[in-house]
Amino acid sequence: MMTDRRMARIASCALLCAASQLFAADPPAPKAPPGMAEILAASPAGDWRALMDEHTMYLQLPAGRVIIEMDPALSPHAVAAIEALVRMHYFDNAAVVRVQDNFVAQWVNPDTTRKLPDSMLTLAPEFTAPIGAAPFTVLPDRDGFAPEVGFVDGFAAARDPKAGRMWLAHCYGAVGIGRDNDPATGNGAELYAVIGHAPRQLDRNVTVVGRVRQGMELLATLPRGTEALGYYAKPSENVPISRVVMAGDLPAAERTRLQVLRTDSKTFQEVVEARRNRTDTWYINKAGYIDLCNAPIPVRPAP
Amino acid sequence: MMTDRRMARIASCALLCAASQLFAADPPAPKAPPGMAEILAASPAGDWRALMDEHTMYLQLPAGRVIIEMDPALSPHAVAAIEALVRMHYFDNAAVVRVQDNFVAQWVNPDTTRKLPDSMLTLAPEFTAPIGAAPFTVLPDRDGFAPEVGFVDGFAAARDPKAGRMWLAHCYGAVGIGRDNDPATGNGAELYAVIGHAPRQLDRNVTVVGRVRQGMELLATLPRGTEALGYYAKPSENVPISRVVMAGDLPAAERTRLQVLRTDSKTFQEVVEARRNRTDTWYINKAGYIDLCNAPIPVRPAP
Repeated sequence: MMTDRRMARIASCALLCAASQLFAADPPAPKAPPGMAEILAASPAGDWRALMDEHTMYLQLPAGRVIIEMDPALSPHAVAAIEALVRMHYFDNAAVVRVQDNFVAQWVNPDTTRKLPDSMLTLAPEFTAPIGAAPFTVLPDRDGFAPEVGFVDGFAAARDPKAGRMWLAHCYGAVGIGRDNDPATGNGAELYAVIGHAPRQLDRNVTVVGRVRQGMELLATLPRGTEALGYYAKPSENVPISRVVMAGDLPAAERTRLQVLRTDSKTFQEVVEARRNRTDTWYINKAGYIDLCNAPIPVRPAP
Repeated sequence: MMTDRRMARIASCALLCAASQLFAADPPAPKAPPGMAEILAASPAGDWRALMDEHTMYLQLPAGRVIIEMDPALSPHAVAAIEALVRMHYFDNAAVVRVQDNFVAQWVNPDTTRKLPDSMLTLAPEFTAPIGAAPFTVLPDRDGFAPEVGFVDGFAAARDPKAGRMWLAHCYGAVGIGRDNDPATGNGAELYAVIGHAPRQLDRNVTVVGRVRQGMELLATLPRGTEALGYYAKPSENVPISRVVMAGDLPAAERTRLQVLRTDSKTFQEVVEARRNRTDTWYINKAGYIDLCNAPIPVRPAP
């Protein structure tokens, strides 16, 4: 009943449209400059790249597949360790054991009899990498947490030219390695994804390995744990992860073929500008600014 | 089985603790300076205030009560309009009709036969207020979206001294008034709460009326809508809101008695500093910075 009217409303305005259209007609909107959707629709194919299947994990949750692409450029040993754990089936029958509202969802294999070989118990931290580890596309907008922010091949990142270091940033969807106080305890066996406002204070304190490319909503909608730090109170509350596989290890037919917009492309620059100064007529005051974690990194099914 | 060990682990480290403690013992932690919990535990009673029950709404969702405190200081007409709608029972049998991942949950009365009186169809926008409208506690940390940010009596806010205007900011949990392209269409009949990374580009484009003080997780875990902008595809997906009442209209026994930390108090200053430079030993690199929307505004049950 309402759907047709509501859909008409969606077409006529951009965001946060109010029910008032049910009462008062909108004036016809003037032609707006292209927004993100139009920019992406007009983008050349070469401005997109396929996910690196050899560094992409699929987490199988009851509600579906969560797709995490890892970036070996800045944390090669951590990514290799996680991939080894995946291939040892360490994460099969793992579980999300912690979901803290506006912070993180965290998973591990809760089977305490499941031991890792001694050589995998610890891992030298890769919280930051040498500044030359990967090409960096600067976002000119100033940032409070780092001297410079920007993007590394589809991942939000930051760097400190004086210190000569760069790192992936804790934006919504970032995936990192949980650890205890000793940095070397972050061995890759416990991972988390950011599900709330960017906790950038974690930057340079944890090895961030990648970003959720699809299925964020499957993590973000999980029930929050009621114990301290959002841990589930009882093992029966854990959300089972039936298995984790590397996309590259699956037959082609079982892979989800996604593309991510190249963050060093002209299209991405245009997307960022269209978000920095929103082009649709709904916006009366343009921000004139974008923060690192509000810059969308578009993903689409491979055409 | 695991719970005791996990809880011991929580006590021994602060955040994102890894399962590695299952394999390697933690060294004893040196005594850390007080963190937020200790600061709050030691706070004088006078640094807290009760919620303004006369401006606080309870939304009854299937999963429980969402408590939204409104701030009439910066948007007196909008808050009055919403309170009038609540008292007309306009929001009884309302519904969450839109949940867009990492953005907003939005609710309205989907009954299109429910008409508002002509006098309530439109409302002059209160996107910003004169800078003297309310006392402002400055957060010294720089911000990209506004010349100054800070707090107004328990609400995250920003201001522009040159323009002489101030406004509430779109942080996680902020509640604002949906509208169409015409600013006057934001009449209060459609409201939203921020459930993701702060969409600060909405600042000064919408009237923000308040903040969720309790029950954010009830909104943040709702299923995401699959239509454009996160609208639910079918009315049957809507999440019913059985009723909305003003806390002040309920008998005392039916109210949830909460307190919010005064953001102009010394305790709040200490909390912000403890979060700007985390005090627990888990943090190896302190941020030396906090962004407006990462500053917690503590809420507790009234003692």
